[in-house]
Amino acid sequence: MERLNERVQAIEVIIHKYMPKAEGYAATVMEAMNYTMNAGGKRLRPMLMQETFYMFGGTGETIEPFMAAIEMIHTYSLVHDDLPALDNDDYRRGRKTAHIVYGEAMAILAGDALLNYAYETAAKAFSMTTEVQPVVRAFTILTQKPGIYGMIGGQTADVELTGTPLSEDALEYIYENKTGALIEASMMIGACLAGASLDAVKEIEKLAGIVGRAFQIQDDILDIEGNEEELGKPLHSDEENGKVTYVTIHGITDAKAEVEHLSQQAVKILDGFPQENPFLRELILSLVHRRK
Amino acid sequence: MERLNERVQAIEVIIHKYMPKAEGYAATVMEAMNYTMNAGGKRLRPMLMQETFYMFGGTGETIEPFMAAIEMIHTYSLVHDDLPALDNDDYRRGRKTAHIVYGEAMAILAGDALLNYAYETAAKAFSMTTEVQPVVRAFTILTQKPGIYGMIGGQTADVELTGTPLSEDALEYIYENKTGALIEASMMIGACLAGASLDAVKEIEKLAGIVGRAFQIQDDILDIEGNEEELGKPLHSDEENGKVTYVTIHGITDAKAEVEHLSQQAVKILDGFPQENPFLRELILSLVHRRK
Repeated sequence: MERLNERVQAIEVIIHKYMPKAEGYAATVMEAMNYTMNAGGKRLRPMLMQETFYMFGGTGETIEPFMAAIEMIHTYSLVHDDLPALDNDDYRRGRKTAHIVYGEAMAILAGDALLNYAYETAAKAFSMTTEVQPVVRAFTILTQKPGIYGMIGGQTADVELTGTPLSEDALEYIYENKTGALIEASMMIGACLAGASLDAVKEIEKLAGIVGRAFQIQDDILDIEGNEEELGKPLHSDEENGKVTYVTIHGITDAKAEVEHLSQQAVKILDGFPQENPFLRELILSLVHRRK
Repeated sequence: MERLNERVQAIEVIIHKYMPKAEGYAATVMEAMNYTMNAGGKRLRPMLMQETFYMFGGTGETIEPFMAAIEMIHTYSLVHDDLPALDNDDYRRGRKTAHIVYGEAMAILAGDALLNYAYETAAKAFSMTTEVQPVVRAFTILTQKPGIYGMIGGQTADVELTGTPLSEDALEYIYENKTGALIEASMMIGACLAGASLDAVKEIEKLAGIVGRAFQIQDDILDIEGNEEELGKPLHSDEENGKVTYVTIHGITDAKAEVEHLSQQAVKILDGFPQENPFLRELILSLVHRRK
């Protein structure tokens, strides 16, 4: 992925542009928002969004606030996930988590603030174009996929079912929603804003669902046989937390075969579109075969 | 307020219509959402929204998802405010709070879910009308007022400054944002959806700000000389929590005079509109003179 670092840098600039300047009586919550947003990460969701937008010939700037918004939603979910009452993680990507730095009350508020500000930011797209319908479609997806019929649904099941014998059906539900929903949202929003047809957006949703699933299973594999230094986190956390994963149900050999199978499926769908974006194709392949 | 109970009942029906049915793997978070939304309360924000909508001659159903949404946002803020890391309240309106009934993890998720679902619900208005611009204006307000430049900003200052000697300026900021912002949003959205002019919406914002301020000072007064049974909560909680309020700064006599003054100001602005809504006028007067 030759251009990858360069692309990440360009996305950092866009995200930064839409973050609040920490000032006034609420400066602390804004600082906490910026602290968590600046923690790095792959910027995978905005990148998938933008590359899908490019693939469908999208132009103009309406995509930018949505790119920032999806990363804010992803980040808020991490901030709240790390809280003592949930995963109780003191570190993420080698940095102290928000509640360690700012205290628990401020971390709760900063998570809320990021979720709310995601919508406030995305709404800026309405004043950036005279074509309001693509923005309405994109906005609607942005409200649905992270919610109770998407990411929060997956988080709820994950919180409730961790430590219990998990059915394959429940595991599928968690993968599809906790991980898959935001990846679906990212790619669907990119397609919508570029003016893709309803059918194309449906096909992109399917593709993104497969990518999300492969991404998650690869995560499970890396938790067992990854490199701690490359990953920036200790191995075997799933086992220690009593988590049932695709690997614990099917074994690591089948898990690898499934990632391979899903990655072929994803590329097949992608290649079926009349439009093409070689970088997006490469990105998807690199994601499901990543080492970190 | 003869019609008040009847109006509250009608609003309950609308809110209920937009709440999720608790089912599937994420049933618990949906149950927790419904539990907190069904805790009663005055339904003040949806009522102010609807009455402002009526005042400007609004018709049609786009107002309904917004009424449900503003109550969800108000409720999420209470759920997170009650958490152990914030106000640590076990009871609200005589019922156990969400984290007591569902545990802290689920209460955090339920708050997140209510905030997200508020936007998901309001977005339904886009498919209820062909006139998209009033919905865009209303939606934009719904994303701004509860956020870091509104309610969350006020909450942040409140969390950080409680127990410190509070300047009058800081107190004004907290009142304007923590309490005022959602009341402003409610009335402004009602006006927008009814097609009110930009100037009229600005005037409504001013009016709502005054109502919010009077409402909050009356709250401070009732905390000192209210009736515990009528209020459904113990008196003197501000003093016990070391809160600086308008009353602690100015004394109760001045506080009462200020509420009276604000209420006259509010009615004066309301009477300046060519449109009228006697029920809204009565509602505003009753709010700032309420005993509970």
